[in-house]
Amino acid sequence: MPLPDIDKIISAIQSVIRPKNEGPVALHEPCFNGNEWKYIKACLDSTWVSYVGKYVDRFEEMIADYTGVRKVVVVVNGTAALQIALKVVGVKAGDEVLIPALTFVATANAVAHCGAIPHFVDSEEKTLGIAPLKLKEYLKEIARPDTSGCKNKKTGNRIKAIIPMHTFGHPVDLDPLLEISREYKLEMIEDAAESLGSFYKGKHTGNWGKLSILSFNGNKTITTGGGGAIITNDEVLGKLAKHLTTTAKIPHRWEYRHDHIGYNYRLPNINAALGCAQMEQLPGFLAKKRALAARYKQAFAGVAGVRFFREPPHAKSNYWLNALLLDEASLARRNQLLEKTNDAGIMTRPAWVLLNKLAMFQDCPCMDLSGAEDLEARLINIPSSAVLGE
Amino acid sequence: MPLPDIDKIISAIQSVIRPKNEGPVALHEPCFNGNEWKYIKACLDSTWVSYVGKYVDRFEEMIADYTGVRKVVVVVNGTAALQIALKVVGVKAGDEVLIPALTFVATANAVAHCGAIPHFVDSEEKTLGIAPLKLKEYLKEIARPDTSGCKNKKTGNRIKAIIPMHTFGHPVDLDPLLEISREYKLEMIEDAAESLGSFYKGKHTGNWGKLSILSFNGNKTITTGGGGAIITNDEVLGKLAKHLTTTAKIPHRWEYRHDHIGYNYRLPNINAALGCAQMEQLPGFLAKKRALAARYKQAFAGVAGVRFFREPPHAKSNYWLNALLLDEASLARRNQLLEKTNDAGIMTRPAWVLLNKLAMFQDCPCMDLSGAEDLEARLINIPSSAVLGE
Repeated sequence: MPLPDIDKIISAIQSVIRPKNEGPVALHEPCFNGNEWKYIKACLDSTWVSYVGKYVDRFEEMIADYTGVRKVVVVVNGTAALQIALKVVGVKAGDEVLIPALTFVATANAVAHCGAIPHFVDSEEKTLGIAPLKLKEYLKEIARPDTSGCKNKKTGNRIKAIIPMHTFGHPVDLDPLLEISREYKLEMIEDAAESLGSFYKGKHTGNWGKLSILSFNGNKTITTGGGGAIITNDEVLGKLAKHLTTTAKIPHRWEYRHDHIGYNYRLPNINAALGCAQMEQLPGFLAKKRALAARYKQAFAGVAGVRFFREPPHAKSNYWLNALLLDEASLARRNQLLEKTNDAGIMTRPAWVLLNKLAMFQDCPCMDLSGAEDLEARLINIPSSAVLGE
Repeated sequence: MPLPDIDKIISAIQSVIRPKNEGPVALHEPCFNGNEWKYIKACLDSTWVSYVGKYVDRFEEMIADYTGVRKVVVVVNGTAALQIALKVVGVKAGDEVLIPALTFVATANAVAHCGAIPHFVDSEEKTLGIAPLKLKEYLKEIARPDTSGCKNKKTGNRIKAIIPMHTFGHPVDLDPLLEISREYKLEMIEDAAESLGSFYKGKHTGNWGKLSILSFNGNKTITTGGGGAIITNDEVLGKLAKHLTTTAKIPHRWEYRHDHIGYNYRLPNINAALGCAQMEQLPGFLAKKRALAARYKQAFAGVAGVRFFREPPHAKSNYWLNALLLDEASLARRNQLLEKTNDAGIMTRPAWVLLNKLAMFQDCPCMDLSGAEDLEARLINIPSSAVLGE
C-alpha cells in the first residue's frame, strides 16, 4: 500500500479551493445571500420574535414539503430534537440505545439526557455508518427479543432503540437496519443532523425512523444560528413531540395549566425566519456542494495513498463535509496532514474521537469496534462550504 | 369586606392604558426601538450567527455589569439555565428541591429534568414569594440536617436545594431564606426569570443564590426571542456551568474530544445580538414600567375590593407584570373579571394554577399551601408593557 504524500494531498485540495480563496478557508461556513435580512426585519417589525409566529409554522411546512414527512417540529438544536424523539418512542432511564461509536458526541449525550445508556456499535467503510451485518451477528450473540422488547443478555438491560447516523451527510444503508429493528423490536430513530438534502433510495433521509432529527447548527448545510427539528410520518407521535417541546400548556384563554413535564425546546420565531430564507436556497447550496465534491473527486483521482469518499451506491448525498480516507490507518500520518493543512490556513479535521473512549462513556457497553477504529485513524474532512463550489 | 365591582376595576385599568390604545392591549409585548436591527444585520453580515461570536461575549458582559455578578452564561432559555444551575450545585436524581407552589411550571420542570423531586412550599402576600417563617416551622418538623446534607424525615430523601422565585419581578425576602439555607444545608438558587431590573436591599436579584437564573423570553422585560442566563458570583461554578452548556469539548485545534455530558444549551450569537440592543434600553424600559405602575397605583387608590400590588419595602421592583389582588378569595369573581377584560381586548391573566395541582406533580411532597391557595384565587395580572408607561 503506498504511503500518502502529504504535500500532494495539500496540492490537490488547493487546486480545488485556492483559485478563489487566498486567505484562510473554513471547513464549513454559512451563506446568507437570500431573504435572510428581509424575513428577520419583518419578524422584528412584527415584534413576534419569540415562540409564536408565522415563520415557525412556515419553516416547519417548508421542511415537511422538502423531506416529504408528515410532521415537523422545530427546536433549539439537534441534541434537543434527539432527546425528545427518544422520549416519544418510550426510551426510559436504564434502557440501552444502540448508536455508532463513530458519531458526534451529541448522539450519545441525547441518550444520556434520557437517563439511558449508549451502547456503541461498529461502522463500516462503505457508508461510514453502522455496519449492519456485523451488528446482526453481534445481536444474535448478546440480545434476546422477548414479549417486553429486547433484552441485553450480558447487562440485563432492555435495548430499546437504535440510532443510525448519516455520517457527513452520507446515508447509511437503512434497509438492513430496519430489518434488524423489526427482528429485535427496536425503535429506529435516524440521526439525520448532517443529512438535510441527502436521499436514500430516492427518498429523503429521516423517512425511515419512527421519528428522525435534523440540525441547523452554524456549520450545517443550512443554519438558523442554533436549531434542529424532529421529523416524522407518525402524526400522533409528532403532535406529542410538539407538545413536549413547549411548556405543555393546555390551550386556554388565560389559565396556566400544564399536562406534561415540558422541555421548552421551541425554536424562536426569529431563528425560524432565518431558516425560511435558508430553505429557499437549499437546492442551490446542494448543487454547489455536489459540484465541489465532483472537483475534489477529480483532483484526488491521481493522488496515491488517499481516496476521496463518494456517496454510497444506494444514496444521493448532500456532501455536507467532504472526506478523505487515507489508505493506511495511521494516526501519526493523519495528524501530520491535519497540522500542515491547518498551518496553511486550510481548515481540516479528523472524524470524532470514538465515543467509547471518552471518560463519561468508557464504561458503556460496546461491540468490537475495529471498523470504527480503522475509520477514526484514516478520515479527514476538508473544506466543504457551498460557496467553494461556485 | 367590600365585594369588588368588576366594572370599576375595568374602568381603572382603562383610565391608565386607553388614552393611547384603542385596539387590543397585550399583557406584555417587547419593544425594538434601539440597535436591534443594526446588531442583527452586523451579525448576519459577519456570518457568525451561531455559538461563537462577539455578541455572546458582549451580552454576557453587559448582564454582568448591570447585575453586578462575576460570571454570566447565556443559554437558550430560563428552564435550561435552571436545570444547569441545579446540576452545578450538585442536585442528583431522587433529591428534593424546595420550590414555591405559586410559580411558573418551568421552575418545577427544571427540577424534574435533573431527575429530582419538587417539594412545594407556601407563599405569602407580603412578597408573593416563599413565606420564610412558615417554611422555618415546617422544616423544623420534617427536616433534619446531618453530615451529608439535609434529610426529609418523612420521605427519606435528601433535600438538596431551595429555589426562591421573585414573583412578577417583586423580590422575595432573601435574608431569612438564606438563614434557613445555612441552617438546613440547602443550596440556594434564585429563580430571577422575572426580575431583571429588580433589586433587593440595594443589590440586584440573583446575587444571593449560589447560582441564579434570568429569562429573556418574548414576554419578559427584555427579550432575545428565546433566551436565559445563569448568573453567579462563584467563578469556578460559573466556568463549569459554561462548559456544561456547550458540548463540553476540550479546546484543541482539530481534535473532537469531550470531558462531560454536555447540554448544548448555548444562546446563538444572533439572539445575543438582539439581547445587546435590548440591554442598552433596559434603564428606559424600567423607568417606563415604574411610571406605568405608579399610574395604576393612583387609578386603583379609590377602587373598593381590590388592591394594586406594590413592591415590598426591602425592594425596588421592575414591575414586570403588574398585579391586582382581590380582597376576597373567590375564583368565581376572579374568573368573571378575567372574562370581561379579555372580552374587552384588555389582556389579563390569573397567577398560575398551583403546581401541586398539576397531574405530573400531584404526588410530590408539599407543606400546607393555604397562603398560595389564597393568592391563586385573588391575583390578576394586568397589561404591563413598557410602552404603556410612556
